[in-house]
Amino acid sequence: MKLSDIARKVGGNLEGGDLDITGINTLLEAQPGQITFLSNPRYAKFVADTSASAIILDRKFECPTPLSIIRTDDPYLATLLTVRIFYPRPEPEIIGIHPSAIIAESAKLGSGVAVAPGAVIGQKVQLGHRVKVGAKVVIEDNVQIGDDTIIHSGAVIRHSVIIGKRVIIHPGAVIGAEGFGFAPVGDKYEKIPQVGTVIIEDDADIGANTCIDRAFLGATRIGQGVKLDNLIQVGHNVEIGPHTVIAGQTGISGSTVIGKGVMIGGQVGIVGHIEISDGMKIGAQSGVTKTFPPGTTIFGYPARPIMETKRIEASLRKLPELTKKITDLENKLKELFANKK
Amino acid sequence: MKLSDIARKVGGNLEGGDLDITGINTLLEAQPGQITFLSNPRYAKFVADTSASAIILDRKFECPTPLSIIRTDDPYLATLLTVRIFYPRPEPEIIGIHPSAIIAESAKLGSGVAVAPGAVIGQKVQLGHRVKVGAKVVIEDNVQIGDDTIIHSGAVIRHSVIIGKRVIIHPGAVIGAEGFGFAPVGDKYEKIPQVGTVIIEDDADIGANTCIDRAFLGATRIGQGVKLDNLIQVGHNVEIGPHTVIAGQTGISGSTVIGKGVMIGGQVGIVGHIEISDGMKIGAQSGVTKTFPPGTTIFGYPARPIMETKRIEASLRKLPELTKKITDLENKLKELFANKK
Amino acid sequence: MKLSDIARKVGGNLEGGDLDITGINTLLEAQPGQITFLSNPRYAKFVADTSASAIILDRKFECPTPLSIIRTDDPYLATLLTVRIFYPRPEPEIIGIHPSAIIAESAKLGSGVAVAPGAVIGQKVQLGHRVKVGAKVVIEDNVQIGDDTIIHSGAVIRHSVIIGKRVIIHPGAVIGAEGFGFAPVGDKYEKIPQVGTVIIEDDADIGANTCIDRAFLGATRIGQGVKLDNLIQVGHNVEIGPHTVIAGQTGISGSTVIGKGVMIGGQVGIVGHIEISDGMKIGAQSGVTKTFPPGTTIFGYPARPIMETKRIEASLRKLPELTKKITDLENKLKELFANKK
Repeated sequence: MKLSDIARKVGGNLEGGDLDITGINTLLEAQPGQITFLSNPRYAKFVADTSASAIILDRKFECPTPLSIIRTDDPYLATLLTVRIFYPRPEPEIIGIHPSAIIAESAKLGSGVAVAPGAVIGQKVQLGHRVKVGAKVVIEDNVQIGDDTIIHSGAVIRHSVIIGKRVIIHPGAVIGAEGFGFAPVGDKYEKIPQVGTVIIEDDADIGANTCIDRAFLGATRIGQGVKLDNLIQVGHNVEIGPHTVIAGQTGISGSTVIGKGVMIGGQVGIVGHIEISDGMKIGAQSGVTKTFPPGTTIFGYPARPIMETKRIEASLRKLPELTKKITDLENKLKELFANKK
Repeated sequence: MKLSDIARKVGGNLEGGDLDITGINTLLEAQPGQITFLSNPRYAKFVADTSASAIILDRKFECPTPLSIIRTDDPYLATLLTVRIFYPRPEPEIIGIHPSAIIAESAKLGSGVAVAPGAVIGQKVQLGHRVKVGAKVVIEDNVQIGDDTIIHSGAVIRHSVIIGKRVIIHPGAVIGAEGFGFAPVGDKYEKIPQVGTVIIEDDADIGANTCIDRAFLGATRIGQGVKLDNLIQVGHNVEIGPHTVIAGQTGISGSTVIGKGVMIGGQVGIVGHIEISDGMKIGAQSGVTKTFPPGTTIFGYPARPIMETKRIEASLRKLPELTKKITDLENKLKELFANKK
Repeated sequence: MKLSDIARKVGGNLEGGDLDITGINTLLEAQPGQITFLSNPRYAKFVADTSASAIILDRKFECPTPLSIIRTDDPYLATLLTVRIFYPRPEPEIIGIHPSAIIAESAKLGSGVAVAPGAVIGQKVQLGHRVKVGAKVVIEDNVQIGDDTIIHSGAVIRHSVIIGKRVIIHPGAVIGAEGFGFAPVGDKYEKIPQVGTVIIEDDADIGANTCIDRAFLGATRIGQGVKLDNLIQVGHNVEIGPHTVIAGQTGISGSTVIGKGVMIGGQVGIVGHIEISDGMKIGAQSGVTKTFPPGTTIFGYPARPIMETKRIEASLRKLPELTKKITDLENKLKELFANKK
């Protein structure tokens, strides 16, 4: 494919000579004839050494080596689009319904549904058009799934869960397990029946081995376009607003409500029954115990507005030195008082 | 169902008029004709706005709106019991043995055992009466499971594990994987064979995608009535005492012994080879590195008695200000000394 | 087996009388006739009370009770070797290809391959000699697996992943799920196709429910002899050097490169796009945000060289007291200034 064609398709401007491009790869791994990209400034130092023949850059970066350049306002997006050009079908597709799949008679499948070997589809399940069900997936009774959703190998969708369109559920994810609800009775605990469900809205992405518990009553709700990474725990009755993104191993305790457009780092813990406001950013490994205003960036354990955490952090580094200074001050004062007597 | 009947069944007193009640829901989602509840004081502000017709309250809460009330000493328990009245069968039951289940000839199944599609039951497995095995569950050779236990879809019970009665294992849980034991030999590591097992006692509840490793020798032991949330890691040779409750994503390193009636928050990490005393409470995200006396509430990283952590926490907030004060003091002292000369 | 034979096989010296040994167990659980071991000094206090007849000890430990002793430079290794003597086959082996396994016609299986019930092996998969595939395992299309590798029950190997020889993948692990890559486009996120793969080198060990994401481009790489515990998250394009060991629930963000011989504790979080140098040690629950020199031991949140964290830690404990001291100093200074006027 001509570099000029790629530039046109990704909405960028070509600088330098036109070329035949055979593929895309990272700065260090790209070969002559391939295009590469700089979307993270951290890697700028590698640009001079790339063997690629062309590069995707932002409007300002000065290229230290004579490559053909696609200039764009958003190199990240242009890279994504270029990858799509070279990998129009990034993974093997599930095709047809494998004879080893076990599909209840009362299940209703839309047109073009594909079911991989060994998948189990329970009673009264409804699958929209072109839904893909991976190998060994379990979809329990009464689940509803919208058009074009993909459930990858080994995921478990428990009964009565509702999943929207174009959702991707990655391997090993467990959707709709019983929430962790127990009433203390004397020294023991009685299980509180979890009779609600989980609703996952359109275009959400649920990571591998991530768990989303069903609600006690009502529904645990994952909003439109939400992206959940791997090994995340979402407690019962949690609600996550649209287009919120959460990195791996984060845990959200029961009944917490997360707004829209929130960005949450990895291994964050959020207590139950609080609100995370729209547009907040939460640094990795933070422990969030209360509500902050919309748009606040917080960080730390416990989480505080980031400048506050950074100030404490800076003081902490000086703490051993500070301790010494105080001892010095005490000694000098003693001296002063001693001199006065 | 009459409200007076509900009151009687949950052991509460009816205040206000008797009514026909059609269901139970949360304060904000309940409809006219339904009963709601206030078990968490945090939600008291919503009571005035509920559309419910009746409410479960403790003995003291003054209801700001004219609802019929069930008064009880334990609203949490009364709510649980009311949910059970309206949802006597909270989830679809597995019935019979599906022809696609693969059951070794040498396995022994009690009466009323049910096995869902695609489950695998290995050689010499013993299942008690009325055990329910979910879709795609794997129960490896020589496992023993007591009466009325439920193993949900996709869980893996490795060989020779022993599980008691009325236990619930949630989807994706892995019981009895090899412990993480390696002996350094030169620059490499040799695997230490993990030849012990896991014993889970009666009435325990094991969360989705939680992992309980088998012992090196002897047994990793989960006590009676223990409740483990999702994505928990239990290392080899750990022992957890009866009626201990552990929230999601907590990790317990090898050979640590946890007492009875302990409450552990989410994302806690506990080092290996220590003891967690009976009745302790451990705050979320704590890092526990040593043993504390029975009943201690600890918190923090590293975990300390909670009042100590709170005092440090309070001082930390003032740390940047403190640093300034010390500089002031130093300057004033310099001034004093300068004046003296 | 004679104790003298065990001593010879593990390369130790026999002290005291020779005996017939019937098995091995821990200090507290060993019975008369069995051998026990002291590899962790923490348990020295239990030696006096053991019922074992013999014990494996290092060269220096003075045994408080008249047991026969195997002396060795490395009691840990000697214990491992003794366990292997008594448990030559520590777990039931998968034998033959179960008729319920679903194996694509285009898959190529080496000699002695065994496949347990219900496993799925996709198109063009290549399995080396003596590979063991557990029950309900999914191996998607185009995967290559080397000789003598074991994939335990319920693990999912996504398409095109490459796994070396003698690797062990534990139950529920997910290898090759799509990395968490999204490009923000307006208020939403567009998925970045993850068209790379995962390469796991010889002798690696991947824990239960651990997730290793495939690369965006190129490969996420797990080096030779790497040991990963349970519930670990490895992001896209991460590389882990040979003989590195990582404990449970640790998370490694995308594109981070970890050196060889690194030891990482449990629940550690490592940001993306950094380097972890060879031979480093990282304490449990640390949050690592930058690169340190080879061999550094770091700890804390954020992670710092361990002596620095310990100094801060020690000062922190005295912080409330320090705060008081400063107030005292201020008061005394005020007094001084007041006296001067």
